Amino acid sequence: MYQLGIVKRNIQRADRAAVDQLAGFGSATVHEALGRVGLMKPYLRPIYAGAHVAGTAVTVLLHPGDNWMMHVAAEQLQAGDVVVAAVTADCTDGFFGDLLATSFRAQGAVGLVIDAGVRDVKDLTAMGFPVWSKAISSKGTIKATLGSVNVTVVCAGAVVNPGDVIVADDDGVVVVPAALARQTADAAAAREAKETEKRARLAAGVLGLDMYGMRETLAQAGLKYID
Amino acid sequence: MYQLGIVKRNIQRADRAAVDQLAGFGSATVHEALGRVGLMKPYLRPIYAGAHVAGTAVTVLLHPGDNWMMHVAAEQLQAGDVVVAAVTADCTDGFFGDLLATSFRAQGAVGLVIDAGVRDVKDLTAMGFPVWSKAISSKGTIKATLGSVNVTVVCAGAVVNPGDVIVADDDGVVVVPAALARQTADAAAAREAKETEKRARLAAGVLGLDMYGMRETLAQAGLKYID
Amino acid sequence: MYQLGIVKRNIQRADRAAVDQLAGFGSATVHEALGRVGLMKPYLRPIYAGAHVAGTAVTVLLHPGDNWMMHVAAEQLQAGDVVVAAVTADCTDGFFGDLLATSFRAQGAVGLVIDAGVRDVKDLTAMGFPVWSKAISSKGTIKATLGSVNVTVVCAGAVVNPGDVIVADDDGVVVVPAALARQTADAAAAREAKETEKRARLAAGVLGLDMYGMRETLAQAGLKYID
Amino acid sequence: MYQLGIVKRNIQRADRAAVDQLAGFGSATVHEALGRVGLMKPYLRPIYAGAHVAGTAVTVLLHPGDNWMMHVAAEQLQAGDVVVAAVTADCTDGFFGDLLATSFRAQGAVGLVIDAGVRDVKDLTAMGFPVWSKAISSKGTIKATLGSVNVTVVCAGAVVNPGDVIVADDDGVVVVPAALARQTADAAAAREAKETEKRARLAAGVLGLDMYGMRETLAQAGLKYID
Amino acid sequence: MYQLGIVKRNIQRADRAAVDQLAGFGSATVHEALGRVGLMKPYLRPIYAGAHVAGTAVTVLLHPGDNWMMHVAAEQLQAGDVVVAAVTADCTDGFFGDLLATSFRAQGAVGLVIDAGVRDVKDLTAMGFPVWSKAISSKGTIKATLGSVNVTVVCAGAVVNPGDVIVADDDGVVVVPAALARQTADAAAAREAKETEKRARLAAGVLGLDMYGMRETLAQAGLKYID
Amino acid sequence: MYQLGIVKRNIQRADRAAVDQLAGFGSATVHEALGRVGLMKPYLRPIYAGAHVAGTAVTVLLHPGDNWMMHVAAEQLQAGDVVVAAVTADCTDGFFGDLLATSFRAQGAVGLVIDAGVRDVKDLTAMGFPVWSKAISSKGTIKATLGSVNVTVVCAGAVVNPGDVIVADDDGVVVVPAALARQTADAAAAREAKETEKRARLAAGVLGLDMYGMRETLAQAGLKYID
Repeated sequence: MYQLGIVKRNIQRADRAAVDQLAGFGSATVHEALGRVGLMKPYLRPIYAGAHVAGTAVTVLLHPGDNWMMHVAAEQLQAGDVVVAAVTADCTDGFFGDLLATSFRAQGAVGLVIDAGVRDVKDLTAMGFPVWSKAISSKGTIKATLGSVNVTVVCAGAVVNPGDVIVADDDGVVVVPAALARQTADAAAAREAKETEKRARLAAGVLGLDMYGMRETLAQAGLKYID
Repeated sequence: MYQLGIVKRNIQRADRAAVDQLAGFGSATVHEALGRVGLMKPYLRPIYAGAHVAGTAVTVLLHPGDNWMMHVAAEQLQAGDVVVAAVTADCTDGFFGDLLATSFRAQGAVGLVIDAGVRDVKDLTAMGFPVWSKAISSKGTIKATLGSVNVTVVCAGAVVNPGDVIVADDDGVVVVPAALARQTADAAAAREAKETEKRARLAAGVLGLDMYGMRETLAQAGLKYID
Repeated sequence: MYQLGIVKRNIQRADRAAVDQLAGFGSATVHEALGRVGLMKPYLRPIYAGAHVAGTAVTVLLHPGDNWMMHVAAEQLQAGDVVVAAVTADCTDGFFGDLLATSFRAQGAVGLVIDAGVRDVKDLTAMGFPVWSKAISSKGTIKATLGSVNVTVVCAGAVVNPGDVIVADDDGVVVVPAALARQTADAAAAREAKETEKRARLAAGVLGLDMYGMRETLAQAGLKYID
Repeated sequence: MYQLGIVKRNIQRADRAAVDQLAGFGSATVHEALGRVGLMKPYLRPIYAGAHVAGTAVTVLLHPGDNWMMHVAAEQLQAGDVVVAAVTADCTDGFFGDLLATSFRAQGAVGLVIDAGVRDVKDLTAMGFPVWSKAISSKGTIKATLGSVNVTVVCAGAVVNPGDVIVADDDGVVVVPAALARQTADAAAAREAKETEKRARLAAGVLGLDMYGMRETLAQAGLKYID
Repeated sequence: MYQLGIVKRNIQRADRAAVDQLAGFGSATVHEALGRVGLMKPYLRPIYAGAHVAGTAVTVLLHPGDNWMMHVAAEQLQAGDVVVAAVTADCTDGFFGDLLATSFRAQGAVGLVIDAGVRDVKDLTAMGFPVWSKAISSKGTIKATLGSVNVTVVCAGAVVNPGDVIVADDDGVVVVPAALARQTADAAAAREAKETEKRARLAAGVLGLDMYGMRETLAQAGLKYID
Repeated sequence: MYQLGIVKRNIQRADRAAVDQLAGFGSATVHEALGRVGLMKPYLRPIYAGAHVAGTAVTVLLHPGDNWMMHVAAEQLQAGDVVVAAVTADCTDGFFGDLLATSFRAQGAVGLVIDAGVRDVKDLTAMGFPVWSKAISSKGTIKATLGSVNVTVVCAGAVVNPGDVIVADDDGVVVVPAALARQTADAAAAREAKETEKRARLAAGVLGLDMYGMRETLAQAGLKYID
């Protein structure tokens, strides 16, 4: 559950090798490999096309219009982290811009996922600092109320525990629990291997109906062909 | 009306020459030429800028979270078709990705219009397979419930009959009934011819007020100029 | 307040030098410099990435589905103006396309901000005519009902008086009252000067916690660090 | 397909006895009986709780902000009709109020379904004239542009042909094609009969798991019970 | 324009007699009488059906999640005032509940219009204190940042100056500039007088087509009747 | 984290006495007492005004358009439970109606909170079975895919563990972790006691500015009174 006014310093990050392996797959593949859970809502969008990142979550819980805790989070960052920022109520303000990105990067962060707005997107794009947000807004924030860092949060509909793996690309953002990182990476690799072969067959004109053996099931379900 | 569990095999596609002629115009011009009807809602957006396609509709009726019928539709495709996918209730799941795109293209399809979500957008962009969707989502779908192929559907607020012409670009998606394809193409050509001349005059500084002869009508309507 | 059926010809435009100075800053910086007011809602988005403009507002009040007043506005334009179009009720129709853009540019306009839809976005992008809109739609408009030009309007939640400065970029659109243009530009310059130094320190690994001296305030507010 | 500028006078209304029979069922039952198609989107809501109507559709196609065709439709009404109003683009204006309701009722109409806004809802409630709309708005409309009456329309995502049966209640609005009215009413009656018995068993504490025989299928699907 | 940190004490309230006269009309009638401007967006809804109020505006400008200024506003209230609360960014938090309602009522306020959320709606309903809001939310607010009282605000898309007349009912909320209160009330009375007669004729079966003399205009516009 | 295909039978329900005590407070009071966390998003609305319930959560994880697990959940219910239903992707279908309500009630449930749609709302209202949902829809669901019962879920933005206390009323839905039920109930009681006295003072005309001692802080923050 949420807790306010707390910073957890020693978090258990997912195994780095597994994170690196997960970085080789898209969010859709990882989501399937994980058993089709853990996906953030699709209103989160990357601020530029082609962004793709995998990293360990440092979580931040913010209040609407207040980004104080982002600075507290910066100190907790390690190389390869992705900041995951949740807000206690819906808000589209720009909680993050090029100054914070500069700081986060200096501390080792490789990206940001935020259930709110960001600004300075032209600079962020030029920096190549990937951000997934639900809005872009020039409106800045104040620093007045305590939230938390590294507590469990709900971000865009998904539960995120500090240390979980975040895989994000053009298709969305998926959360892999730290304890499942390795097996999920393996499952993703297996899945992708199969897709390569399927792709070749489909490109050659084989129908999914035949490749997947669907014709009988469809007939049993009552599908009728008419002319 | 919608019907479930049906695949219509022999559909009457719009005249190919008319489709090719319509391909030369944008959706806005075609929409005007058609008498300002047949436009899908503007929440449908292309997954990459600059996409532009005209083709004959093969329609698919899906259930939320279930893309079974997409595979059934693949078999009904011919060169130059655009798949138009409707869903029986609002859903943003990713019903379509690079595997299906590979299959659709192998069967002749030139694009997809879907009143739901898609995934693998980086791959689809790299393939140059144009898609207009209302969402992008990593969330995959199951194959459990029958929908239909080549029945009349409502997609993003527009009625689409199989064989109708779909014209889609950055501005949106318009449906031209097959029987009106030729005359709409002619009307579009006439409209565009006029626009070239207008553009030149406006660029030269002529005001629309004068070019369209609006001053008198505006005065009659009571427009007052004050200083 | 709104008034219908009126065109104000002689408006007091903001000082040109101040406008040019404001053009050197992003909307986020200007918004902060103005005291964090005057921002349009973030649902307004540029039709292409990288657009950035500062200009003096010529306002237009439209009715849903009716762009008659856009032509009336064209005649009131001077070099360096930005057209700001409001609508009396929510509407996503395409009120503006490449013909009007050609005319507006010929009369001196450098951009459009519209609380509705536009079309021909591929052409507008090719022209480099920047537009901030809430929708893109092929649906055209009629010319039947009087609105107004150069009255006070509310556009995307912000009050705009004719002659005010509009600063718009990827982050959003901010309105600077004409009378405050100079002082806002000065405040923006001061702000930006400070940011350069901050950016360098943050990039060097200094934490915002230390640079902004937040540690004591956070402790007073009760922030607890746990392991 | 949509057509503008047309009024169809002689439409084939669904069989009155079937309509009356359908009036005895809720929209959810009718929707199931029809094979789970034909439902309007759930953003349509009744203006007062408890409204329930079944009638034959007289369709109206309107333009945003323009209710001219509502008056044309009034003349085409017969006893037992429900007016179904679609708009060529999204609009929340109040197209309908107590004067039109008075007129529609005088001509025989028993309700309105409109993919837009209405006003005078206190009066409409007092009159007991049921309306399903997507918005309530004081904003009136003009009378300037031709739409159509009794053409096929798309209303809130559903195709409606003139003469179809509309069944609407607190749960939503469903469209039954005129030709299917009788069989749908029979299917609804059969369905409702079964529900009465099921309700009694469930109330007595029988579990759906047992009543529907789900336990084996769930086990086959892999459901695991843990303590 | 917005200004932060300011409380204006002496505002010019609209003429009381005109306000009382306006209280006799619905928001739709007043909106028409005012020339169809000044309407707030229809997402504002009354917290209970049947609420109807007319009063003079005391305006409040709030920040997201912060209701400090509501207490400042309470001191500026006089008998017959309606509080109009705007927020500098979209927010659905519950800025107002039964304690503030008790205070506002004690100071003379007769209602609240707020472009945000409220809570304690069961208590507010029991008190008969009418509120128009865009959300209902249990989430409370803090008291940390200065806004303003009695500055010009934009509330739900409408400009409100302190002292303006607010007329609100089930159909929505309309703002009448103080200087136009009297003439708007007169125009509303004239309009309503005409409607009574029209209603009687329509109830007797006269068609709007004939009563408004529309047949010729429709024919000129090209309306075609088909069988 | 989510898990699919699992039913947890023995869950630790919150202390009954604490639940009963919490039942005496509104969701807003409980939310404050809990430290202002744990609130579901305000798009969840009760299907009838005046509903108010406190109970222990039995959680259900569903797939879009599939309510199979609701029947599985029924068997896990005990007296005083509230069913909390989450869906793996946004969906407005009607997952729940009067038959399931009859079954749930027979098994002891006192209400439902669902991040999706429900139907038969007239019947549910007549039964007095309280439901908080994000939509009302006639569209039924299938029974094809495994979800889970009594796993941790995210419902309308809040984390819910089985056994947690749900307090819901007209203002919204708040989740109290089982372990905090007692202390939250005590804090709520203390809070409510204070409010009674405050209410009386405010009703007597005392200003919040004085009662809360805000004048000095406001002055320090720079608030200026002008005439």
